[in-house]
Amino acid sequence: MALIVQKYGGTSVGSVERIQAVAQRIQQTANQGNQVVAVVSAMGKTTDTLVSLAQEITTTPCRREMDMLLSTGEQVSIALLSLALQELGQAAISLTGAQVGIVTEQAHSRARILEINPERIERHLKEEKVVVVAGFQGISSTTELEITTLGRGGSDTSAVALAVALGGSQCEIYTDVPGILTTDPRLVPEAQLMREITADEMLELASLGAKVLHPRAVELARNYGMPLVVRSSWTDDPGTRVLSDITAGGRSLQNLEISEGIDAIEFDRDQARVALLRVPDRPGIAAQLFRAIGQQQVDVDLIIQSIHEGNTNDIAFTVGRAMLPAAEAVAEATAPVFRSGQQTQPNEAEVITERDIAKISIVGAGMIGRPGIAAQMFQTLADAGVNLEMISTSEVKVSCVIAAADGAIAIISGNYPNLMSFGISILSCQIRRRDCTDTLRNNFNQSC
Amino acid sequence: MALIVQKYGGTSVGSVERIQAVAQRIQQTANQGNQVVAVVSAMGKTTDTLVSLAQEITTTPCRREMDMLLSTGEQVSIALLSLALQELGQAAISLTGAQVGIVTEQAHSRARILEINPERIERHLKEEKVVVVAGFQGISSTTELEITTLGRGGSDTSAVALAVALGGSQCEIYTDVPGILTTDPRLVPEAQLMREITADEMLELASLGAKVLHPRAVELARNYGMPLVVRSSWTDDPGTRVLSDITAGGRSLQNLEISEGIDAIEFDRDQARVALLRVPDRPGIAAQLFRAIGQQQVDVDLIIQSIHEGNTNDIAFTVGRAMLPAAEAVAEATAPVFRSGQQTQPNEAEVITERDIAKISIVGAGMIGRPGIAAQMFQTLADAGVNLEMISTSEVKVSCVIAAADGAIAIISGNYPNLMSFGISILSCQIRRRDCTDTLRNNFNQSC
Repeated sequence: MALIVQKYGGTSVGSVERIQAVAQRIQQTANQGNQVVAVVSAMGKTTDTLVSLAQEITTTPCRREMDMLLSTGEQVSIALLSLALQELGQAAISLTGAQVGIVTEQAHSRARILEINPERIERHLKEEKVVVVAGFQGISSTTELEITTLGRGGSDTSAVALAVALGGSQCEIYTDVPGILTTDPRLVPEAQLMREITADEMLELASLGAKVLHPRAVELARNYGMPLVVRSSWTDDPGTRVLSDITAGGRSLQNLEISEGIDAIEFDRDQARVALLRVPDRPGIAAQLFRAIGQQQVDVDLIIQSIHEGNTNDIAFTVGRAMLPAAEAVAEATAPVFRSGQQTQPNEAEVITERDIAKISIVGAGMIGRPGIAAQMFQTLADAGVNLEMISTSEVKVSCVIAAADGAIAIISGNYPNLMSFGISILSCQIRRRDCTDTLRNNFNQSC
Repeated sequence: MALIVQKYGGTSVGSVERIQAVAQRIQQTANQGNQVVAVVSAMGKTTDTLVSLAQEITTTPCRREMDMLLSTGEQVSIALLSLALQELGQAAISLTGAQVGIVTEQAHSRARILEINPERIERHLKEEKVVVVAGFQGISSTTELEITTLGRGGSDTSAVALAVALGGSQCEIYTDVPGILTTDPRLVPEAQLMREITADEMLELASLGAKVLHPRAVELARNYGMPLVVRSSWTDDPGTRVLSDITAGGRSLQNLEISEGIDAIEFDRDQARVALLRVPDRPGIAAQLFRAIGQQQVDVDLIIQSIHEGNTNDIAFTVGRAMLPAAEAVAEATAPVFRSGQQTQPNEAEVITERDIAKISIVGAGMIGRPGIAAQMFQTLADAGVNLEMISTSEVKVSCVIAAADGAIAIISGNYPNLMSFGISILSCQIRRRDCTDTLRNNFNQSC
C-alpha cells in the first residue's frame, strides 16, 4: 500500500464540476489500494478576487492580513473537495495548514516550511480517509496559530513537503498541461513532452519549468529524493517524471526548506572578460555579435547588457581565459560593423578586455523571491574588500565578477566568518551543499 | 477607558464601501478613548453563496465540512476590516475563532460557546490595537483546532460572549434597522422604536426580536448582566438599550452558554382544556372562536390546532380552571355557527372539555435549534409514566399538557433523577434558574 500525495492546482478545482472530477480521480487512486493525501489550491480566480477586494481598500496591505485573507481560498477548496469525496462514498476529511501542523517561518506571504507534524494525517489515513490539505498555507507557531502563506510555488511546495514528511512514495502534481514540455507550447506548437527529467535539469530550466512546477518544490524533492510526477488533471497520460537521487533521503525533517536557500557556491578564476562599449541600441546587435563568437567555437559564460547614455548599450561577456584572444579578435572584427551601421553616432564602439577576473556564484532555488540573499552575498564580498565588476542574476543563481586578485585577498585574509567567504577561498572548484559538512551549512544558513 | 465590543452583521460589511464605513465608526469609538473589539459576520450573501456551492455537490453535507467551508466567510471579513482600519491609520489585528481561543462544544453547525481565552485579545488591546474577531465560529479543542460554527444567532452570541469574557462595559449590535421595534416595520409601517427594553421582555418577544438580535445572545447578556445596545450601522441614533440586571455578574466564565439550555421549569395545575373537534378548515374560524372567547374576558393560555382527517381541524385551548364554564359556554355557542357554515360536512363540530389537567413547561433561549431538549423532556415524563395530552412548542418554550393526576403520580413517586422531574414535584410554582441551587442546575445540565 503506497502513500501518494496528489496536488491539484487552481484550474483543476476551478468549478464544482472540476472538483467532482478531481474527487473521482482521487477515489480511483484510493481504490487501487493507495493512501491518498490531496493538496489543493484556491478555486480558479478566487485568489485574484480576494486580492482585488484588498486593493480596493489599500495599496499597501499588511502582509499578515493578506495571509489571513488569501488562506480562505484554499480552505473553501478543501471543504468542497472533501464533500465531493464523501458524496462518492469515499471517506475524507479536510485539514487546514494549522490543523495539520505545517509550521513555517514568520515571513508572511513568502514563508518557507520549517516542519510538518505527520501524526494527525497518519491517524486519519489509518481510518481509511483521504486527507485533503490546504496548500499554500501554514502557521508560524503552534500556539499563536498565525496564518502564513508560502508565496510563489506554495501549493507545489506544500505537496512535496507533505510527501517528504509522511514518507510518501511519490508526489503527483496535477495541472492543466500534459507535463513538462521542451518549451512553452503557447509560443511553440511543436513543443515536446518530456517523459523524464532529472530534478537538476529541471532546476536549470527553472524559468521554463516554473510555469508548471515551481523550482522551489523541485529543489525540495531533489534534496529529499522524492519522486515527482507532473501530469494533466484531465487525462490518464503518464506525464513527466522528475527524478531525484533516492539516496538523498535520510536528511533531517526539521527546517525542511530553510537549509535550501543556497545549494551551491561556485568559484571560478579561469575567467576573462570582453566588453563592447557603445554598441547601437537596435535589434539584432547581440545576435550578430554572439553568432560570430559562436562560429569561432568560443564558449561564452555570463552575458550582461546594460544601457549606456544616449542610444547605445554596453555588452560584456566572460569566457574561459584561454579563449580570450579568440573572443577579443571576434569582438574587434565585429565592432567596425556596428560603427558603419551607426553613421550618426559620435562615439564609436570600442572593445576592452580584462584577463584577470574571477567569478563567484551562489546557486539555489531557495533564493527565489528572497532579495536578501543576494544582498548578503554582496555585503560579504564588500566586507572582504572585494569590488564587484559585474553582477548577473537569474532566478536561482547570483554571479559576481571580481578581480582575480581580490579572490586572492579574500583567501590571504583568512577571515572566514561564514560559508560565503569560505567559498571564495576554494579556488576553481565547486562545492555542492551535500558535500559540505553540517557545520559549514549551518554557518551559512544562520547568517542568512 | 471603556472596553466596548461592537458587532457588525453581514449587511453592515456587505461591500468594501460599507467595510470602510464600519472602520470609520470603529476608529471614532477608539478615538473617544475606548478599547474596541469588533466582531463581524461574513459579507452580505457570502454564506449563501458558499452553501449553494456545497449544495451543488451534495444534498447531505457533512456538518464538519460545512463549518470548514462557512467559517471562511467571516475570515474574509475580518481581514478586510482590519486592512480598512490600518488604512485609516488605526492599528488593528484580525483574529479567527481559533486564534482567540473561542472554545465550543463539538456540535458542528450549532455549537454553544464553552469559554473564551481573553489573554490574546487583552494583549493586543494593550498594544492599542483594535481587535477584529470572526463571529459565528470557534474551535472544539485547542489541540485539534476543529472549526465549529455556532448556528443561528452565532455572531450576536460571539459578540456578547466576548464582552462577557473580556469584562467589557457594553456590547453594541450594529444592524440595518434602527433598533428593536414594536413589530416588523416591513409589515407595519407605524412600528415604534423602543428606547429601552429589559432582556426578559426581549426574550418574551423572541420571535419578533430575533430578526435583529438573537434570543440566545440576549439570554447570555442577561445571565451575565451585560448591557446590550442595538443600533443602526448607518446613523448615530442611539438605538435600543437591552437592560440586564447588572448584579447577574460574577458567574463562572466556564460553560458560558451550556448552563443556559433551560432557564426555567414551570408547572401549572390550574388548567382546564376545551377542544372543538371537526371545525371547518377555512380562514376566519379561529378568529371567530377566540374573538367570542375574548369578549367573555376569558384568558386563553395554550392554543393548539391540528389537522383532522377530511376538511376539518381540531382546535384545543387551555384556560385557568375557574374559567372553564365560561369558555365551554362560548365554545358550545360558537360550534353551531361552524355547523351551519359547513353544510356538506358529515360529522358535525363537537365540544369536549377536560378539567383535570396540568401544564408543565420548560423555558430557555438555549434550547433553540436543539430538538434533543424537547425529546428529553418527553422521555422524562414518559419514564414517570406521564401521558402527554397536548404538546405546544415555541422557539424558547416547550409545554406539555398532562392529566393533573399524573402530576401527582410524579410527585408521589419521589423519583427525581434530574431537575425535570424535580420540576414536576413543585406544584403551581415557577422556579427561576437563578433561584436554584447550583447542584440542581448542574444536575439538569448534565442530563441534557
